[in-house]
Amino acid sequence: MFAEQYGPWALIAGGSEGIGAGFARKIAAHGVNVMLIARKPQPLEEVAQQIRQTAGVQVRTASIDLSTPDLTERVRAAAGDIEIGMVVYNAGAESKMVPFLDRPLDELMRVIGVNVTGLTMLLHELGAKMRARRRGGIIVVGSMAGFAGGSRMAVYTAGKAYEQMLTETLWWELRPHGIDVLMLIAGTTRTPAMARMGIKLEGTGQPVMEPDEVAQEGLDNLKNGPTWVAGAHNREAAKFMCTADRRAAVEMVSSGADSMG
Amino acid sequence: MFAEQYGPWALIAGGSEGIGAGFARKIAAHGVNVMLIARKPQPLEEVAQQIRQTAGVQVRTASIDLSTPDLTERVRAAAGDIEIGMVVYNAGAESKMVPFLDRPLDELMRVIGVNVTGLTMLLHELGAKMRARRRGGIIVVGSMAGFAGGSRMAVYTAGKAYEQMLTETLWWELRPHGIDVLMLIAGTTRTPAMARMGIKLEGTGQPVMEPDEVAQEGLDNLKNGPTWVAGAHNREAAKFMCTADRRAAVEMVSSGADSMG
Repeated sequence: MFAEQYGPWALIAGGSEGIGAGFARKIAAHGVNVMLIARKPQPLEEVAQQIRQTAGVQVRTASIDLSTPDLTERVRAAAGDIEIGMVVYNAGAESKMVPFLDRPLDELMRVIGVNVTGLTMLLHELGAKMRARRRGGIIVVGSMAGFAGGSRMAVYTAGKAYEQMLTETLWWELRPHGIDVLMLIAGTTRTPAMARMGIKLEGTGQPVMEPDEVAQEGLDNLKNGPTWVAGAHNREAAKFMCTADRRAAVEMVSSGADSMG
Repeated sequence: MFAEQYGPWALIAGGSEGIGAGFARKIAAHGVNVMLIARKPQPLEEVAQQIRQTAGVQVRTASIDLSTPDLTERVRAAAGDIEIGMVVYNAGAESKMVPFLDRPLDELMRVIGVNVTGLTMLLHELGAKMRARRRGGIIVVGSMAGFAGGSRMAVYTAGKAYEQMLTETLWWELRPHGIDVLMLIAGTTRTPAMARMGIKLEGTGQPVMEPDEVAQEGLDNLKNGPTWVAGAHNREAAKFMCTADRRAAVEMVSSGADSMG
């Protein structure tokens, strides 16, 4: 049963909105308590309240910036002695599209902090405890953008590729220890982060997924690692982007990115 | 001509041995002055002496750890007002193969420091100056390991994937500014780093390349970006590893890695 394999608590990093909030609701519906982490306290509390009213599980929130260098200590302090059997890392959405050289270094370092160092620290801390218990689940939410360099998204695409390869390795290394690891790749999804970036989703002819659909595919495919691309249309597109013909891949992604305005 | 497009100075990060030293010698032979950066002063000085005696160009060395957070300032101080028209980033070789959860976090952070933050800081600093001059060359040396998660190399493979996607994006963004950007992917190469890891290269039936061969392919294909895999046999292998069938890719890489002892 889900709660026995992945409970009693799930930590959802980036759980205040979008795909992360979808995961929080769906995991709670399985009877697993959820601890939600994100930067902004108010959206966190709104998701938490909604889950408390509907799912009958315990909900904790902690306002933590995933790019903080003391992430491990902050999470330890917030978690106390609860047993975290599942981690969903759904973070690092980009806030703007700017050429690499025109973006201040401190902003680039923040993107690295969330997608690279934050993920690494959190999985190192919580993965070790799962391994000792010989059960658990890890889902890292990535992006099709990680499949190839993409114009005005240099560090974002690079960070997403980092996430994918780290997670794929953990799938291999933790499988013998009873831990399910999944890299869940999202394509275009109707998230608040996309809306904040001003990216138009309607009228482009491209299929758009809902955050809850992406989360559901992740949970349904937890044992289909290392990597699952959400959406049949995205799985088709992935075949073209995951190719040794790197020029074709980069030109496809980057010309598409440049057309997004 | 090479020196007009990529001179008068080239900075080679990780220039004290292996593929980096190969680049340094070959670039110097084109009449471009070289500044070599690496952690250990003595191997750096040996390569520098050899180049001074044979190539008739200026050679500088600076002992800098590429994972240092003040990399930009250190490089500025070492470079002074010399004009760096080419950057070769050949760094981040792994020192040991250990499962992710069994490796101390500070060691993982050092791998991130070299492959992720160090590269990002250096290209941000020097790329901007190249763009202002509307000429230059950037070569980042990566690894086939970056194509898929690999057992006992979690952060290494992830860092190499980061390097690839960052470099691929820069290929797209800097091409209109007259700057050649190349991600050069090395397969198994007879480097001192491989020897230090105790990896047996002989008798495996796998082709092994020499560092100078890899460097030469990089220079020969500077205009064939975004990504060039060195060695025809490696280009064949890349076709299998760059695939949307991630389970096949990870199993191939990881079972191979586990057989390396």
